Amino acid sequence: MRPYLVLLVALSLQAAVAEWSYQTSWYEKARQDKVARGTVWPQPRSIDTTSVRYYLDPRNFRLEADSSSAAVSDPECKAVVDHALSRYGELLFWIPEEDRAGVDGDETLDKLVLTITRGCTRYPSLESDESYSILVNSDGATLLAQTAWGALRGLETFSQLIYGENGKHVINGTSISDSPRFPHRGIMIDTARHYLPLPFILRHLDAMAYNKMNVLHWHIVDDQAFPFQSTTFPDLSGKGAYTRKHVYTPDDVSQVLEFARLRGIRVIPEFDTPGHMMSWGQGHPEILTRCYPTSFQPDIYYLGPANPARETTYTFMRKLFEEIRELFADEYFHVGGDEVRFQCWNSNEEVQEFMVQQGFPNSTVGFADLQGYYINRILEILHQVPERTRGIVWQEIFDNFEISGDLTGLNLDTIIHVWEWNDTRYQGEPFREEMAKVTAAGYRTILSSCYYLNYISYGRDWPQYYECDPHDFQGTEAQKQLVIGGEACLWAEWVDSTNFIPRMWPRASAVAERLWSPQDVADSEAASPRMEEQRCRMVRRGIPAQPQGPSYCEYEWNILSQLPNYRPVITSSGPRVTEGLFHNLFLGVLVLAVVKCLA
Amino acid sequence: MRPYLVLLVALSLQAAVAEWSYQTSWYEKARQDKVARGTVWPQPRSIDTTSVRYYLDPRNFRLEADSSSAAVSDPECKAVVDHALSRYGELLFWIPEEDRAGVDGDETLDKLVLTITRGCTRYPSLESDESYSILVNSDGATLLAQTAWGALRGLETFSQLIYGENGKHVINGTSISDSPRFPHRGIMIDTARHYLPLPFILRHLDAMAYNKMNVLHWHIVDDQAFPFQSTTFPDLSGKGAYTRKHVYTPDDVSQVLEFARLRGIRVIPEFDTPGHMMSWGQGHPEILTRCYPTSFQPDIYYLGPANPARETTYTFMRKLFEEIRELFADEYFHVGGDEVRFQCWNSNEEVQEFMVQQGFPNSTVGFADLQGYYINRILEILHQVPERTRGIVWQEIFDNFEISGDLTGLNLDTIIHVWEWNDTRYQGEPFREEMAKVTAAGYRTILSSCYYLNYISYGRDWPQYYECDPHDFQGTEAQKQLVIGGEACLWAEWVDSTNFIPRMWPRASAVAERLWSPQDVADSEAASPRMEEQRCRMVRRGIPAQPQGPSYCEYEWNILSQLPNYRPVITSSGPRVTEGLFHNLFLGVLVLAVVKCLA
Repeated sequence: MRPYLVLLVALSLQAAVAEWSYQTSWYEKARQDKVARGTVWPQPRSIDTTSVRYYLDPRNFRLEADSSSAAVSDPECKAVVDHALSRYGELLFWIPEEDRAGVDGDETLDKLVLTITRGCTRYPSLESDESYSILVNSDGATLLAQTAWGALRGLETFSQLIYGENGKHVINGTSISDSPRFPHRGIMIDTARHYLPLPFILRHLDAMAYNKMNVLHWHIVDDQAFPFQSTTFPDLSGKGAYTRKHVYTPDDVSQVLEFARLRGIRVIPEFDTPGHMMSWGQGHPEILTRCYPTSFQPDIYYLGPANPARETTYTFMRKLFEEIRELFADEYFHVGGDEVRFQCWNSNEEVQEFMVQQGFPNSTVGFADLQGYYINRILEILHQVPERTRGIVWQEIFDNFEISGDLTGLNLDTIIHVWEWNDTRYQGEPFREEMAKVTAAGYRTILSSCYYLNYISYGRDWPQYYECDPHDFQGTEAQKQLVIGGEACLWAEWVDSTNFIPRMWPRASAVAERLWSPQDVADSEAASPRMEEQRCRMVRRGIPAQPQGPSYCEYEWNILSQLPNYRPVITSSGPRVTEGLFHNLFLGVLVLAVVKCLA
Repeated sequence: MRPYLVLLVALSLQAAVAEWSYQTSWYEKARQDKVARGTVWPQPRSIDTTSVRYYLDPRNFRLEADSSSAAVSDPECKAVVDHALSRYGELLFWIPEEDRAGVDGDETLDKLVLTITRGCTRYPSLESDESYSILVNSDGATLLAQTAWGALRGLETFSQLIYGENGKHVINGTSISDSPRFPHRGIMIDTARHYLPLPFILRHLDAMAYNKMNVLHWHIVDDQAFPFQSTTFPDLSGKGAYTRKHVYTPDDVSQVLEFARLRGIRVIPEFDTPGHMMSWGQGHPEILTRCYPTSFQPDIYYLGPANPARETTYTFMRKLFEEIRELFADEYFHVGGDEVRFQCWNSNEEVQEFMVQQGFPNSTVGFADLQGYYINRILEILHQVPERTRGIVWQEIFDNFEISGDLTGLNLDTIIHVWEWNDTRYQGEPFREEMAKVTAAGYRTILSSCYYLNYISYGRDWPQYYECDPHDFQGTEAQKQLVIGGEACLWAEWVDSTNFIPRMWPRASAVAERLWSPQDVADSEAASPRMEEQRCRMVRRGIPAQPQGPSYCEYEWNILSQLPNYRPVITSSGPRVTEGLFHNLFLGVLVLAVVKCLA
């Protein structure tokens, strides 16, 4: 027996030694060059870092608002700041208790003091000031912002400056002065091709905040489904949603809005019109154009775009928009306008007669005139709803006015959303020509053409988004000023809650940095180590951002281990409360028993 | 006030009416053609369905093993069957209590009786009989199989036959006779490019069982990392894993094996050699070939393939394989053999001298000879480990013996795994030529070339896998018999736990049906409605299988709502127990208090 015993002891010793003598692997060594710990994404406008390290003790560190500033004295500021301080209190430290090392004897940083110098609005807007500055040195750490929205950006940056080293949370001496390059940094989500359960939208909003994105463009309805539950017209979702469970109630919308507001994110709804409205026709066929002949078409296709010839269409839209405007807070409203099939209008006698009345020729120009007429009526309604609203439209609206030869026909407060890539009218990258034309005509614009995240391909694809600049077109400085930003779009034909977040992130992070950081921060190779850090930071915070090449994160995505037990879980439309209910009842009975006993 | 009240009442009424008058939307109507409820995936060899409906009452329905059969009398059968009956007891019914309708007055089905006619082995193998038959009629429901493995396939089928209708669980009269077309229906996972936390591997095994896949090919280590924790050579993972947390302990491996066994799934490990071994060199550089000159190469690349010239290499591999063979149960072991860089061997004097000794010329033929020599030593070791093991190798091994002009040099019990797609030596689809050559030489083969799921593209891409048939090559009937099956491969350069499951499923389901169902079940259009049903079935069961076009599932993937609370969750290497601990302590104190009070 003795040789076996010796062998056993030897093996145990060897295992123990191996555990203690654990060394950095070659891949880890290689990765240390690939990952830039404690770096900020998106890159700030100006950042200086010293080699002096300050250590943070999670038990003692405090995030504080300067009580003499608007952060406390202005109630609108205070509400946002209080919530943010609580959130970031949790996000600053992530090394699990059991892996933490003490910081006695190290130079420590005990608090961050936040000061807001101006004041706050209830909701963020296109005009919000998001600038902030951070100073970390031996005197302590300060964060200075003009508004709560700037304070949010600064808190995010501060949280990203902290990195882990030998079980300690560390921050280097730092001086940052930062503000965004573009005020409109958006992401479009599509809840019509697939329904997204509410918690996924909320978690996505968190990810947006981690990347300083500030506009959720909610393409909420489309041909396939009408999940928005209108109280004015309940049949829209009652007959147009996939099922009665696949809807967003007014309360759901309010939750999204409040969750977004607290993160400095605007929510802009899109109710696409006059095209992409098939699902509206289930509950309200009267507002759509009937296409002829229908005999050769399947039943479901017989309704086309909105019927521009009927006054009742506009009455309907006005009522709906009044409801929507009351629910959503933003000054802007996306009314679509893309991909309208003129053939259907052309086939309908009522529409034809209307065109004759209006003096529109029966030609492409005439249909462009007709769509121009329609959209102007819609924009007019927006202007008239109780709180004046301005429109955002897809580029076809601009193009149609160009075809009509009447670019002055469209209100200049309208924002043109450029999205087409393969425009047959141009060679090369036509969206650059479109940007030039739109801004030359004096319209503000948002770029999405090169930020379509739904198109996927094998391998590392974020550099293509990263390297596409919204100012990269021929135009004057005044024209460039009219570019208010861009939006990453994730159309949802192939995306639902199963793959929404990993497909979005960190690819949308590339767009985030393009829109926030200075124009010359544009080298994707140089950005890679920060991108790696940002990806793992998101994973650590509960965002399953997909990998960008062989690597690992210190804290891997392991959501399955978070579930009560491993058995495959039926996830129906909402959280199951029964278990918690019984549990609480049981607890309540116990507590009562104790109280009664003691009495 | 009155008009408001009237309006309020009217609105409430309207909402109530809308709720009651909820109608099937046009999209739902369209979808009813697109989804085939209660259909089976993969399609059984023979299935007849009647229009007679039987209703199942979840409170009373029983899954029973026929006690006079091997399902109870054979202890190996019983262990697998008991576990399966418990699992499927949960999977059969999914309509939430609150949505269920009673089945009083309907013709009900009260139980399924399972009979096993032959007996069981502890582990499934290449030779396992997976056939089964099912009969559902007015006499009841029976499932007949020769082995526990067949019983598992039958239970899966039975669970898929049940569909929901108006709140009731329904099954139609059915007669099925089924068995797989190929005995080896595998999926390759790669845990070296990215580490997969254990729960994800387990959940993936569940998904495999739902698709009747029966081989997990575990490409466990590679250049980037060595996560397998060897007790014989702890430095392999101690220095070659990403971190000390990114490892699979022997206990982890045992968990995977047992979880797989209970689902009739074989686990075949791959320890790729002599190439793809860079991570081995961190702990054991002595077994790799040093490449010269190194001056121009980064430090991490100076070690190449295994050193075939040293006897110590073989001693090392023998010890490691003995350990692995004891841990893994399968008769087959994948030893890789792909993508070996001959330049490194060519640069090393020791290897050159060895080649001269062995009489291998200094040419491509000579290096092919050398790799042939090496792999034969490895296969010989496999044959000699306590439980004789057979090898599976990537196709290069076969190709090299062909280059050496000595196809008889490779043991005929070796299985050749065909994977190359773009082979410059052939035009068209070279893997078909390779299949022909390999089988003509008398070797058994597995096809993967057209099942590489890591390559992604925009849109609906499963038909390309579905339509690629392993028998589609020029060869005799005897040659076709040598094709034992195929494997879907998901190389993990761009995949980790954040996107592993949605990228795998339901695309791997296409391969599953190709390998299980008769050859003429090959029309992807015809298969689509069943694919839709299978996708949503997986989602319902906790597998986030991604969508295949605009649609919805009755029960959407909503894992976030399953979490204890919504705050982004730090997921470290294991579940956090602290919360539960405190909770239980609190509960314990309460219970003690009650007990003490009552005493």
